[in-house]
Amino acid sequence: MTQLEAARKGKITEEMAYVAEKEGVSPEFVREGVAAGRIVIPRNPNHKTLTDFKGIGEGLSVKVNANLGTSYDYVDVEEEVEKARVAIQYGADTVMDLSTGGDLKAIRKRILEVATVPLGTVPIYEAEFRAARRKNFFDMSADELFQVIEEHGKEGVDYITVHVGVTLKNLEVYRNSPRTTGIVSRGGGLMAAWMLHRGEENPLYARFDDLLDIARTYDMTLSLGDGLRPGSLADSTDRAQIAELLTIGELVERARRAGVQAMVEGPGHIPLNEVAANVQIQKKLTGHAPFYILGMLPVDTAAGFDHIAGAIGGALAGWWGADMLCYLTPAEHLGLPTPEHVKQGVIAFKIAAHAADVARGNKRALERNRRMSEARYRLDWEGQFALALFPEEARRLKEERGSKTKACSMCGPFCPMNLVEAVLKGKGRMELPVA
Amino acid sequence: MTQLEAARKGKITEEMAYVAEKEGVSPEFVREGVAAGRIVIPRNPNHKTLTDFKGIGEGLSVKVNANLGTSYDYVDVEEEVEKARVAIQYGADTVMDLSTGGDLKAIRKRILEVATVPLGTVPIYEAEFRAARRKNFFDMSADELFQVIEEHGKEGVDYITVHVGVTLKNLEVYRNSPRTTGIVSRGGGLMAAWMLHRGEENPLYARFDDLLDIARTYDMTLSLGDGLRPGSLADSTDRAQIAELLTIGELVERARRAGVQAMVEGPGHIPLNEVAANVQIQKKLTGHAPFYILGMLPVDTAAGFDHIAGAIGGALAGWWGADMLCYLTPAEHLGLPTPEHVKQGVIAFKIAAHAADVARGNKRALERNRRMSEARYRLDWEGQFALALFPEEARRLKEERGSKTKACSMCGPFCPMNLVEAVLKGKGRMELPVA
Repeated sequence: MTQLEAARKGKITEEMAYVAEKEGVSPEFVREGVAAGRIVIPRNPNHKTLTDFKGIGEGLSVKVNANLGTSYDYVDVEEEVEKARVAIQYGADTVMDLSTGGDLKAIRKRILEVATVPLGTVPIYEAEFRAARRKNFFDMSADELFQVIEEHGKEGVDYITVHVGVTLKNLEVYRNSPRTTGIVSRGGGLMAAWMLHRGEENPLYARFDDLLDIARTYDMTLSLGDGLRPGSLADSTDRAQIAELLTIGELVERARRAGVQAMVEGPGHIPLNEVAANVQIQKKLTGHAPFYILGMLPVDTAAGFDHIAGAIGGALAGWWGADMLCYLTPAEHLGLPTPEHVKQGVIAFKIAAHAADVARGNKRALERNRRMSEARYRLDWEGQFALALFPEEARRLKEERGSKTKACSMCGPFCPMNLVEAVLKGKGRMELPVA
Repeated sequence: MTQLEAARKGKITEEMAYVAEKEGVSPEFVREGVAAGRIVIPRNPNHKTLTDFKGIGEGLSVKVNANLGTSYDYVDVEEEVEKARVAIQYGADTVMDLSTGGDLKAIRKRILEVATVPLGTVPIYEAEFRAARRKNFFDMSADELFQVIEEHGKEGVDYITVHVGVTLKNLEVYRNSPRTTGIVSRGGGLMAAWMLHRGEENPLYARFDDLLDIARTYDMTLSLGDGLRPGSLADSTDRAQIAELLTIGELVERARRAGVQAMVEGPGHIPLNEVAANVQIQKKLTGHAPFYILGMLPVDTAAGFDHIAGAIGGALAGWWGADMLCYLTPAEHLGLPTPEHVKQGVIAFKIAAHAADVARGNKRALERNRRMSEARYRLDWEGQFALALFPEEARRLKEERGSKTKACSMCGPFCPMNLVEAVLKGKGRMELPVA
C-alpha cells in the first residue's frame, strides 16, 4: 500500500507521523495532504537506510534537493559517496543520483547505503547508457526503459524523474515556437532525440499505466520531469514549457487515481518577474501537486556563482509556493561539481528555503529567527552560533577577527545593540555596554 | 551649481551625459530624472579621482555599494585601500568609508585617491570619535558635527549618510513600540544615545537648513539614513521605522527645494513578504526619491552567509524598485570584513542587482543574457566567459574539471544543448554533436 493509498483509507503511517513531528503540524494535516496529493512522502520500503522521512508539499517547510553522480568524464564512486554525505550533513532533504558514467548500479548501491534521506534517480540515463554501450542510444527499447525503472524500484529508489510530458504533440509545439537554447533537460533531450529519430511516441507517456504499476508496487514517487523546460531567460515561460505542463497536469490526475504519489518538476531559467506566474500556473494546472523546481535561475550570466543566482530565484519561488528546490552549485553550466561545490550549493539553497519558510509564515522558522535576534541583542555569541543555520562558519568568522570588546570587531565599543537602552536606563555615561 | 540645479535649468551636465551613455538612455531622460529628484548623481567636484559617474534612481540599472573602513579593533589603512580596489574591480558602483578607528582623515584621503566611483561617508562617526577621544561621545557638539560635514565636503566626499529622521518625536514612537533588537544603526544609535542623554533634538534635524547649505556648496548628495531601521525580522516594518520614513519624506522635499540631491536609505531585516510594501511605501512617501537599501536581509539566521541571504532580499527589492543595494559580506554580524569578504559580498550583490535589472526589463541586461545563452547553445566557451558577470571564476571552474568532449564535464556526450537539433537535421545517429 502506498502512502497515498494509506492516507485515502484514513491511515496515519509511521512516515506521516514522523513528518508531522518534524514539521510541527498535526499528523492529520499530513494525512489529508497526502490523500489529496498536495503532499508526497517519497519512501520506497526497499530503501532500508532511509530513516529521515520527508514530506514535500503545501503547508510544510520548503525542501532542498542536491544532485550527485558521476559523469562521462569523471567516475569516482567514493567522491560521489562523499558528496552524498556532505549534502546530507549540510541539510539536503533529498539527494538524486544522476550518474552517467561507470557502473551505475554499483554507484547507486553505495549512495543508497549512505542516504538516510530519500533518493531520487532519472532511470532514462541508465537505459540510454546501456543502449549506448551496446550500440547507440537510439537503440534503447521501451521495455529496456521499464526494466531499468523496475530495477530502481527493487533497489529502493524513493522517487524517479520521468519526462512523461515530452510527447510527440508537445515536441510539435516546441518545433513551432523557436527557442534560443532548444532543449536543455538531459533526460528530456535524450527522450526527445530518441522519439524524433525513431518517429515513436514517448513510451513513458504511451505506456503510462505500466509506469504507474511499477511505481505503485514500490511506492516510488513519480517526479514528472519538465523535459521542455527553458534553458535561458529568452525561452522562459514559452509555449513548449506550458504545453508540457498541461500534459503533466493530466498525468498527475491519473497517478493520483492509481494511488501513486506524484510531484511536478519545474524550471529553470526564469526571470524574477515570471516566478510567481510559473508557480501559480503549476499549482492550478496540476491540482496543487508538490512543485519541485530547478533554481529557479533568474539570470543566465552568473556562471561560477549560479548557486547564489539560483538561491535568489529559489527563495522567491519557495515563498510563492514551490515545495522543493533543486540546488545549483557554483559548477553549474561549467562542469561536474566537487564535494566543496556541493556544500556551497546546499548552503545557498538552505538559506533560500529558510527565507521562503519565513515569508510563508512557517512558525518554527519565525521562532528560530526571533530567538536568534534575542541572542544577538544580548551579544550572546554561543546562543547565536547555536541558532545560526551554519554555526561552524559563523563561529569561524567571529573568531577570525575577534574584538577586544564583548561586541564584534565591526563596531566594537560603538556597537549599537544596547547603546540606546543603556542610556534610557540612565547608565549611559560611564558604563557603556560593550567597551 | 548642483546637478539638481543644473537639471532644473535644463542643462545636461557632463555627468548626466556620461550616465546616459553608460545606461543606454537619453541624456534628456537623465536630466529629467535628476530635475525631479528621482535620480541622483553623487558628484562632489572636489573628488578629483571620480571619473566613473553613477546615476542612481528610477529607469536606471540597480547599483551596488560596498562598505569599507577601519574599526576600533582593526586599523590597517592599506587593507582598507585594498578593499576599495577590490570592491571597484568587482563592480561596486559606490564605496563608503565607514572608518571608526585610526586617523580617519588620513584614511579617507587614501580611499578617495583610489575611488574612481562616488565615495560616501557617515560624518557622525568622526564627530563622535573626536568627542570620545576628548572626553566621551556625549560631549560632541552640534557645531562639531557640522564642522566635520563641512570638512568631508571640502575633501571631496560625494554623499553622506545623515540620520535626520532620528528625532525626539520619532524616538518617542520607538519607545512606545517595543522591539526585539532596539536600534541597530550604528550612526542612528549614536545619535539617539546623544539626544536622549542630553535631552536635545537631533541637530541634523533641528538645523536641517544648515545641512542643506553645506550639501549644496559641495553638491554632496544627502543619503537620508534610516537610524531606526529594524535589526531583526521581529521588528520589521514597525511604527518607529515608518514614523522615521514619514519624517524623511518631508525632508527630501525640503532638500529638493533647496537644490540639494537626496536619496533615502532603507532596511535591513525584512522578510520577503514585506519587501514590496517597503519599497512601495518609500517611493510614495518620498516622492520617488532614489531608494538605497541595506540588503534587504530576509532571515536573521544566515550569519557567515549573509551575503547570500542579503542578495536574495536585495534582488527582490531591486526588482520592485530599490535603486541601490548596500552589500552585506560573509562577515556581517560577526566582524570587520577582509578584502576576500568584500569580494564575495560585491559578487553576490552584483548578481542580485543584475537579476533585478532583468526583472525590471533593463534592455542591456536582457541583451547580455540573450547573448550569453546563444554562446552557451553554441558551446562557445570563450564567448560565455566574455559575457559572464565574473569571467575569471567561470573559466577557472570550467578548466578545473575539463571534459574530453566539446561540452562540459557534467554531461559530456549527453549534453542536451544540440542533441535534438542534430536529430532534427537528420545527422543524429552517427554524428553526435559533442562526442
